[in-house]
Amino acid sequence: MKILVVHGPNLNMLGTRETHVYGTETLNEINEKCKALAEELGIEVEIAQKNSEGEIIELIHYAHGNFDGIVINPGAYTHYSYAIRDALAAVALPAVEVHLSNVYAREEFRKTSVIAPVTCGQITGFGSNSYLLGIRALKEIIENA
Amino acid sequence: MKILVVHGPNLNMLGTRETHVYGTETLNEINEKCKALAEELGIEVEIAQKNSEGEIIELIHYAHGNFDGIVINPGAYTHYSYAIRDALAAVALPAVEVHLSNVYAREEFRKTSVIAPVTCGQITGFGSNSYLLGIRALKEIIENA
Amino acid sequence: MKILVVHGPNLNMLGTRETHVYGTETLNEINEKCKALAEELGIEVEIAQKNSEGEIIELIHYAHGNFDGIVINPGAYTHYSYAIRDALAAVALPAVEVHLSNVYAREEFRKTSVIAPVTCGQITGFGSNSYLLGIRALKEIIENA
Amino acid sequence: MKILVVHGPNLNMLGTRETHVYGTETLNEINEKCKALAEELGIEVEIAQKNSEGEIIELIHYAHGNFDGIVINPGAYTHYSYAIRDALAAVALPAVEVHLSNVYAREEFRKTSVIAPVTCGQITGFGSNSYLLGIRALKEIIENA
Amino acid sequence: MKILVVHGPNLNMLGTRETHVYGTETLNEINEKCKALAEELGIEVEIAQKNSEGEIIELIHYAHGNFDGIVINPGAYTHYSYAIRDALAAVALPAVEVHLSNVYAREEFRKTSVIAPVTCGQITGFGSNSYLLGIRALKEIIENA
Amino acid sequence: MKILVVHGPNLNMLGTRETHVYGTETLNEINEKCKALAEELGIEVEIAQKNSEGEIIELIHYAHGNFDGIVINPGAYTHYSYAIRDALAAVALPAVEVHLSNVYAREEFRKTSVIAPVTCGQITGFGSNSYLLGIRALKEIIENA
Amino acid sequence: MKILVVHGPNLNMLGTRETHVYGTETLNEINEKCKALAEELGIEVEIAQKNSEGEIIELIHYAHGNFDGIVINPGAYTHYSYAIRDALAAVALPAVEVHLSNVYAREEFRKTSVIAPVTCGQITGFGSNSYLLGIRALKEIIENA
Amino acid sequence: MKILVVHGPNLNMLGTRETHVYGTETLNEINEKCKALAEELGIEVEIAQKNSEGEIIELIHYAHGNFDGIVINPGAYTHYSYAIRDALAAVALPAVEVHLSNVYAREEFRKTSVIAPVTCGQITGFGSNSYLLGIRALKEIIENA
Amino acid sequence: MKILVVHGPNLNMLGTRETHVYGTETLNEINEKCKALAEELGIEVEIAQKNSEGEIIELIHYAHGNFDGIVINPGAYTHYSYAIRDALAAVALPAVEVHLSNVYAREEFRKTSVIAPVTCGQITGFGSNSYLLGIRALKEIIENA
Amino acid sequence: MKILVVHGPNLNMLGTRETHVYGTETLNEINEKCKALAEELGIEVEIAQKNSEGEIIELIHYAHGNFDGIVINPGAYTHYSYAIRDALAAVALPAVEVHLSNVYAREEFRKTSVIAPVTCGQITGFGSNSYLLGIRALKEIIENA
Amino acid sequence: MKILVVHGPNLNMLGTRETHVYGTETLNEINEKCKALAEELGIEVEIAQKNSEGEIIELIHYAHGNFDGIVINPGAYTHYSYAIRDALAAVALPAVEVHLSNVYAREEFRKTSVIAPVTCGQITGFGSNSYLLGIRALKEIIENA
Amino acid sequence: MKILVVHGPNLNMLGTRETHVYGTETLNEINEKCKALAEELGIEVEIAQKNSEGEIIELIHYAHGNFDGIVINPGAYTHYSYAIRDALAAVALPAVEVHLSNVYAREEFRKTSVIAPVTCGQITGFGSNSYLLGIRALKEIIENA
Repeated sequence: MKILVVHGPNLNMLGTRETHVYGTETLNEINEKCKALAEELGIEVEIAQKNSEGEIIELIHYAHGNFDGIVINPGAYTHYSYAIRDALAAVALPAVEVHLSNVYAREEFRKTSVIAPVTCGQITGFGSNSYLLGIRALKEIIENA
Repeated sequence: MKILVVHGPNLNMLGTRETHVYGTETLNEINEKCKALAEELGIEVEIAQKNSEGEIIELIHYAHGNFDGIVINPGAYTHYSYAIRDALAAVALPAVEVHLSNVYAREEFRKTSVIAPVTCGQITGFGSNSYLLGIRALKEIIENA
Repeated sequence: MKILVVHGPNLNMLGTRETHVYGTETLNEINEKCKALAEELGIEVEIAQKNSEGEIIELIHYAHGNFDGIVINPGAYTHYSYAIRDALAAVALPAVEVHLSNVYAREEFRKTSVIAPVTCGQITGFGSNSYLLGIRALKEIIENA
Repeated sequence: MKILVVHGPNLNMLGTRETHVYGTETLNEINEKCKALAEELGIEVEIAQKNSEGEIIELIHYAHGNFDGIVINPGAYTHYSYAIRDALAAVALPAVEVHLSNVYAREEFRKTSVIAPVTCGQITGFGSNSYLLGIRALKEIIENA
Repeated sequence: MKILVVHGPNLNMLGTRETHVYGTETLNEINEKCKALAEELGIEVEIAQKNSEGEIIELIHYAHGNFDGIVINPGAYTHYSYAIRDALAAVALPAVEVHLSNVYAREEFRKTSVIAPVTCGQITGFGSNSYLLGIRALKEIIENA
Repeated sequence: MKILVVHGPNLNMLGTRETHVYGTETLNEINEKCKALAEELGIEVEIAQKNSEGEIIELIHYAHGNFDGIVINPGAYTHYSYAIRDALAAVALPAVEVHLSNVYAREEFRKTSVIAPVTCGQITGFGSNSYLLGIRALKEIIENA
Repeated sequence: MKILVVHGPNLNMLGTRETHVYGTETLNEINEKCKALAEELGIEVEIAQKNSEGEIIELIHYAHGNFDGIVINPGAYTHYSYAIRDALAAVALPAVEVHLSNVYAREEFRKTSVIAPVTCGQITGFGSNSYLLGIRALKEIIENA
Repeated sequence: MKILVVHGPNLNMLGTRETHVYGTETLNEINEKCKALAEELGIEVEIAQKNSEGEIIELIHYAHGNFDGIVINPGAYTHYSYAIRDALAAVALPAVEVHLSNVYAREEFRKTSVIAPVTCGQITGFGSNSYLLGIRALKEIIENA
Repeated sequence: MKILVVHGPNLNMLGTRETHVYGTETLNEINEKCKALAEELGIEVEIAQKNSEGEIIELIHYAHGNFDGIVINPGAYTHYSYAIRDALAAVALPAVEVHLSNVYAREEFRKTSVIAPVTCGQITGFGSNSYLLGIRALKEIIENA
Repeated sequence: MKILVVHGPNLNMLGTRETHVYGTETLNEINEKCKALAEELGIEVEIAQKNSEGEIIELIHYAHGNFDGIVINPGAYTHYSYAIRDALAAVALPAVEVHLSNVYAREEFRKTSVIAPVTCGQITGFGSNSYLLGIRALKEIIENA
Repeated sequence: MKILVVHGPNLNMLGTRETHVYGTETLNEINEKCKALAEELGIEVEIAQKNSEGEIIELIHYAHGNFDGIVINPGAYTHYSYAIRDALAAVALPAVEVHLSNVYAREEFRKTSVIAPVTCGQITGFGSNSYLLGIRALKEIIENA
Repeated sequence: MKILVVHGPNLNMLGTRETHVYGTETLNEINEKCKALAEELGIEVEIAQKNSEGEIIELIHYAHGNFDGIVINPGAYTHYSYAIRDALAAVALPAVEVHLSNVYAREEFRKTSVIAPVTCGQITGFGSNSYLLGIRALKEIIENA
């Protein structure tokens, strides 16, 4: 089983960026946790961070045929990127949407995900643990598919 | 660590109810899974299902002082019960909102949760696994509080 | 053939309640008319009135396996109880929504029924006759199912 | 007692038109059922189908002085014809709005009736039986007026 | 100078129709007043009443080349007939929109005119006098054109 | 019969102000026309222009007991001054709302009058003639009251 | 004179619940203040707290015939319980809606009361004093009825 | 303790103005009641009525340093005067908003107060008693500040 | 292959009507171009223009059984005629919606087509060429059906 | 070159008013800075503060013929005073709208300016420097006009 | 004549992507058809596919001076890319918007094109034929420019 | 002090692009003006133009640690790029949003900036001078931070 983890825009700034919202963990630390869990669960994992909508789309296309599922934190693109939504629908792989912060307790615009309707499900608000829970969730979906 | 799992309205019908949406697992089977995971994680768990908004509110009040956190599937009350929201805010315990189905891929009204803003986070779309992931998420929050 | 008639909140006040809107007939008189028609049509009928959303949900659950269909006047819950909607969808029995007054000629909020999309149909505005027409409508649906 | 039954636009296509929505009964068969019921109830009935909004308006005007009430299925005009609404208000006859399909379970635009506020009530979702129930409802209204 | 006066749907019912809103004057009486004023002002006037949107459109087309301006009471079509709006724009004659009742003091939907933006102006709320003032207004516009 | 004509904000700038919208006539010229017509119709007329909402309100109060009716061009206050609306309702005199330009053919915000529902009617789009028609309309209302 | 004071959902948690919003006074302390004022004013008072919408409805029904008026803090039900609204309309007793906090300075959803239109008036934002002022207000209404 | 009572636009017309809504009491009578209560409670009170938004703003500014709190009935300005709202926020004195009629049972636009979010609370619907209750409420706030 | 071309309201005015929007070509000239192309493509074509909604509906009904597809320019009915939409759905023939002008670059109301969801596709903005492209598009759809 | 600087409502309270939002600078200090800059740039400047909408309108009228441009901070009137907007359009002088605070980072209602569309541009969020930048901006516009 | 054909995001996935919506044709096959038609019509054509909004913008810039017109399928960017809209407006070349599927018969968000107002027209719903019709449409526009 | 000036999408087309809106100045000329002013004010300035949202995000990240503030014209991204907003929030540098044209006097969609709430302020409508004023504004903010 091979899983792609996609970090969206601005996530490379983690640890310095708005630490009262996103915490002090860096992206590297999250990635290490994801890899450790993947190893524990016997899953191969590949991780990438992109700021460009177009590159995220191409990353998703690249998953087609090469991966069994996607864990994606689309960052701010969550709220308007119908193009990323279409990319996920196009590759038709099981996908889990994750968010570090509880988007439902923040600005109004963060309450709408245009991505969620084409995913299997969403995990929101648990910091880096959102990714780890997302990997667990995806594993079960792939196994039961 | 002691966790309360709250099932909202109509969840007692699981297994017979709209199986194309909610699957064929019964509430009992979900509860057994929750208990097994709780035992594995060394957590005490208590589980209850209520159809009445008022009884759910009182269940949440009862958690105050008796539990360290709440996993709650508010069912259809998710979309309009400001009274349940207020109950969760009143007891000020860490809470995780879970849903069996991907509510973001269904009717428009299911896309709004009035509960989510007062929880720690939300896990949506993974069937009974939403509860199990919710228990894991809650455990980590309580340990890091 | 066995039919459950469900009266929602405040219908126990009929006859005294806003008589310019709802008329002077009491709930008892309506129930007698329903029973008389049921007998005439050779249908068994059971009738209950509940003010609590949770009890209405459980009444609907109870219909599952025990009745062939439901005539329901959800009262004010018509306009927001997604939980009652889900209960009707869960038991998957044919249901007819009825209203005493013409809700479309009253306050704006009464024009939306969140229940109607999961029923077979709706009969609105004919006083106690709405129930009688609802029983006739339901009988035909059950016979042709 | 003399009742006018008005079929709105496209109802002449019944039986061939979208049979998964409207069934295979033709308008003729519905009309025969209406006439049979009318005879059984001792009512005179006249039936007409019009595709033009203007002709429906004039049909309603014609009812003024010649009929005791109207059963009307305004078809798609239901959702925007304020002119038909005004015609019904102008003649001030008791009117019952009927629909074959459950309009509340279809497209969003079908959920609004601009006609209903000037009628006595609405019967929706019971196929040709909506007309028969409508005739029964109207008879009782006229008798009690 | 030659003016066309167009009465829209249901205006043939004036005098009997909702007299608390529209008064007891008949359409004939209004027409007589219009003709008398026209004669007094030295204007030729032609008057027609149509219930059909299509016939009103054709009446407006017919004005093109035959009349110097139009006084129109579009009745309920005021609120949704973009086709009548387009007809007035197509013939490019000065037009005055008139209403018997004060539409701004009635139902919400009557507050929007889709016709008004392509007319010279609107006169609303003065009973039959709205027509007379409309003729006066139109005369001045034509003279100053 | 005594009529008060009220000019709202910015109307003192007429003749210089946006002449492509409002024409080159000055307020004085309009006032002269009003006085001439009043004399012709045997009406006493008093005319005032105010830029302040509060002063317009007090002008309307002053009309109470001193005038038989009001012709008012509330200018931009038309679109939001509920206080002027309340003043007109308070004095309960017949009032006619007039506008120089066709407000329905301009910016979106100009299409809503919060004043119109408490007036007898509205005359819009005929330049200074709107006032003259307004005086005629008001005279007839007062005579028939 | 006999008054019923109804506390809605979550008010039993007062004193522990979100003290920065609701203060540290307990429900008992508020009740004592109400009773003291009632005694001072020569009014009989009965007080009850319910978390269930259905029980609040039945409490209101019970007031019918047994009380002269109702002071009600509907808590979060304020914002969506059309069923409680209907209960108040049904019993047709003078009612005063009270709130501890200034709901107009909090979340958007708290700005709408579906209950207020069927009450005599509303008192909002004065902590326990809202109840005391409510009792005073109700007394005067009953005396002047 | 010194309190400023501010009456907004049109309140000088009380007693003659729409008596079915506002009653027959005059502003003078209300003022006398306020003074009597103030004396009873040992409070100094100053009362002013203004129709102009600007003068109300300046009255509020004048309260700064000279009064301990404000009771204000902003009349129709309630619904749109962000400038009065800003004035109240600027002086940062405790303020109570009062209304004679139950604004929540009237036109839609009266349901929104742009002032309320910067006040301590609101008292609505009790006629002149709204002022008296407002003075009591304000006194308690000032004493406990 | 036999195709029906339907011109909606006001299209008979082409060439004189708002030439800055619709150009100077007459309907006759467009019809000649359609016939020439049809002949070139080996298609039979019948063309009709109607101003009445009802007649357009009947034209569409008439196509049922007599034609293989429809090219329709619904004119202003595009934006509100659910009755024409239902007619197209009823006959279940492939249909192409065409517009002369780019409706997306004009008034807001022209941006919504209630017809488009039941057609195969839409061609907008190319003057008379929209019809010619529509005929080509329809031909290919019919051949591939 | 002669510039008018207009301060809107509540700006006289600067320095004491909500200092966390508006800072501790007084209006006098801002005026001194404006005058110093004007002198430096060789511009004549006149400055006035008004709380009344009507007086602001008349100030703008007064600018007509006497000034080359206007720098205006309309305060809360920014969000609803179409009358001030019309005044600026009437005098047709170049105008620059300025705000002390970043209105886009505050309450929702502050995000809409009804004034901006008739100005040359807007400068928002720089405290007293907004005025200085506004004077510089206006100077360049006047010089290049 | 030289035309640029721009394929937007995800179109490289055609043939594998959601074949029930987009069919089984690959992008290569569409490109071959476009080239064949271009050759037949004597047009030079260049074709590019980009997933990145920025690259599409630069492609459009590149067309400026090098091409006579653009056929563009903006994919999901259709619904929100005001930047692509601005790019098309900037180069001021005739452009035709095309879509494979009938976007008006799919999700609500697909019904709005922010691009269409700056194009000549739109062709929607004809599969690969949309491109071919688009090339024909563009050719005629360029020839008649 | 070191400032980054960021030009968003399509600004490279300045001088040729819609010159009636944006003027004939080229981006180079604006950049020269910025550099000249920077030199005059003793500021280091770096300038970049990007069409890609992702590259703008990375430019902003790059400013973190290397610059003291940002002047940004986000072009069309202003209206929907929550990702650029998040980038600015992430680097937490003082930022000034500038626009060449008065966006408040253009299309509706240009009136909303999703960027402005995370900036210090906005300067809009002064052509290239918006940048120069932005540099001045930013300098003062940095000096006073």
